[in-house]
Amino acid sequence: MNKSILLKSRPEGKPKTTDFEFSENEKPSPAEGEVLLKAKYVSVDPYLRGRMRDEKSYIPPFQVGAPIESGIIAEVMESKNDSYAVGDYVNGMLQWKQWQTSNGEGLQKVDGEKAPLSAYLGVLGLTGITAYVGLLKIGQPKQGETLLVSGASGAVGSVVGQIGKIKGCRVVGIAGSDDKIELMRSKFGYDAGINYETTDNMKQAIEGACPDGVDVYFDNVGGQTLDAALMNANRYARVVNCGAISLYNEQKQPTGPRLEPVLVKKSIKMQGFIVRDFQEEFSNAISQLSQWLEEEKLTYEETIVKGFENIPQAFIDLFDGKNKGKMVVKVT
Amino acid sequence: MNKSILLKSRPEGKPKTTDFEFSENEKPSPAEGEVLLKAKYVSVDPYLRGRMRDEKSYIPPFQVGAPIESGIIAEVMESKNDSYAVGDYVNGMLQWKQWQTSNGEGLQKVDGEKAPLSAYLGVLGLTGITAYVGLLKIGQPKQGETLLVSGASGAVGSVVGQIGKIKGCRVVGIAGSDDKIELMRSKFGYDAGINYETTDNMKQAIEGACPDGVDVYFDNVGGQTLDAALMNANRYARVVNCGAISLYNEQKQPTGPRLEPVLVKKSIKMQGFIVRDFQEEFSNAISQLSQWLEEEKLTYEETIVKGFENIPQAFIDLFDGKNKGKMVVKVT
Repeated sequence: MNKSILLKSRPEGKPKTTDFEFSENEKPSPAEGEVLLKAKYVSVDPYLRGRMRDEKSYIPPFQVGAPIESGIIAEVMESKNDSYAVGDYVNGMLQWKQWQTSNGEGLQKVDGEKAPLSAYLGVLGLTGITAYVGLLKIGQPKQGETLLVSGASGAVGSVVGQIGKIKGCRVVGIAGSDDKIELMRSKFGYDAGINYETTDNMKQAIEGACPDGVDVYFDNVGGQTLDAALMNANRYARVVNCGAISLYNEQKQPTGPRLEPVLVKKSIKMQGFIVRDFQEEFSNAISQLSQWLEEEKLTYEETIVKGFENIPQAFIDLFDGKNKGKMVVKVT
Repeated sequence: MNKSILLKSRPEGKPKTTDFEFSENEKPSPAEGEVLLKAKYVSVDPYLRGRMRDEKSYIPPFQVGAPIESGIIAEVMESKNDSYAVGDYVNGMLQWKQWQTSNGEGLQKVDGEKAPLSAYLGVLGLTGITAYVGLLKIGQPKQGETLLVSGASGAVGSVVGQIGKIKGCRVVGIAGSDDKIELMRSKFGYDAGINYETTDNMKQAIEGACPDGVDVYFDNVGGQTLDAALMNANRYARVVNCGAISLYNEQKQPTGPRLEPVLVKKSIKMQGFIVRDFQEEFSNAISQLSQWLEEEKLTYEETIVKGFENIPQAFIDLFDGKNKGKMVVKVT
């Protein structure tokens, strides 16, 4: 049998397991030119929440009644495509199905000997590339500057902080538990951490942790954390708008202080991006990240949930910050 | 006698004439190395409102009881400085005084034969350079793109729109009267104009005037106009945050919709700047602007108010949009 996970209803506010539905079908057979894939590791990511809304965006919304898709590492179990052999592992945007066929378009082979398979969804995948291009191409940190990161112990943030250290910055992270702060400092080399759950005044907390002000703010959360970061921003600061997870489940238009006066006053740049804007940097990014991993300048953390049936809950848990590092579901 | 205009009190909300005070002193005498200057034209600019607040910024605030300063064209009436001769005209950040001395630092000589003296405060001065560097360095308009400009008939906006046309954009302007819209279209070559005073729904109005969406938004006003522009922004749009005149007189922190989700979703850049960030571009900018003027690709409008005593009112009138093009006071 072959289980799939479909979008049952568009979530209102925070997604619930009842927004998803399981279906069972026959295992498919590959046609000429196709491969049969068995899912091994499934990536769950905050940005998927956006695709659950019926909104025009850079990528079409998920359809109600159709399978969700995300980054998946799969094993080639049958091949009628000369480019792939049985036993190859591939990485691609695939559907939340145990078994599926593909014509091979958009798949990349990955080498399980060089790095654990799950790493290709994290530090060596779109997550790591997002951190790399966002920080270096938009944030442009300089030696001696202060880099502030929100979602700092998460999949992207934990890589951003380490690249910031490699580039010679003072790196300060914001996260939601003392455990995460400890992980950031001991494993990822952050110079200081702020637990937003136990901090009354984020503006003051950032001021204390960033005595020279903030030069680069890598933002994964948006909202009041962004406001507080801007209050501490230096002249010519750069804000990398990578995500806004604190706002993704809002049902009304969120409001806040208008930011344009401070942008003018301090000549600040804020720039949103998605990793696909930087396709031409992907191979550079991956070879640099791999090299840093080999040299042990870079490390990573994963939260691995087991079982295909737990994919929806793992996705939902992202919004409660239950992950440290990259959240991945191991199928079976 | 020598009249000066001092800041009497920090304005609350919109500035009033009673926030300013006139004083009379002796005409000063230049010391060795100094020149005696007589003010001819005084620039009044929205950004001066910011310096009237007691706030840290890129430039120190004005002090209560001390003279205001702004861009002024003055004539050298006596010279004990070898670099300047009697009869020279100079442009500099000078005090609101009929007569003052200077050691020559920061002054640029201007040539009244080449262009009217007042133009050196406008299209050939910081105003024109602001339009040039803001649009070309931050906005980076490409042939065939749509450029939207707010404050479009004002000092900076009127130049921005014309440079946009030179660069091959469709150019749409927002201003506050039908007269101004007419001026924009007939004199500055704008393709379309939106009168925000008579428009109920800015989002729809921009959608109508920019059928291909907005690629570059040059923002002089901030606030709800910025919100409406972003609702019509294309993927990879660039917002040039030049000013936020609609918010300068607010006494409470202005609030509005949070913009970070749309920045992420559409990979939008918003960047604030002041003209001094681009010092290295000044001579390029001035020679290019002069050439366009000579070639009649560029024209300008001025609102010239007469009389030193009318400087405070001319400044206040900026916030009611009483100027077309650059507002300048001619000191008879």
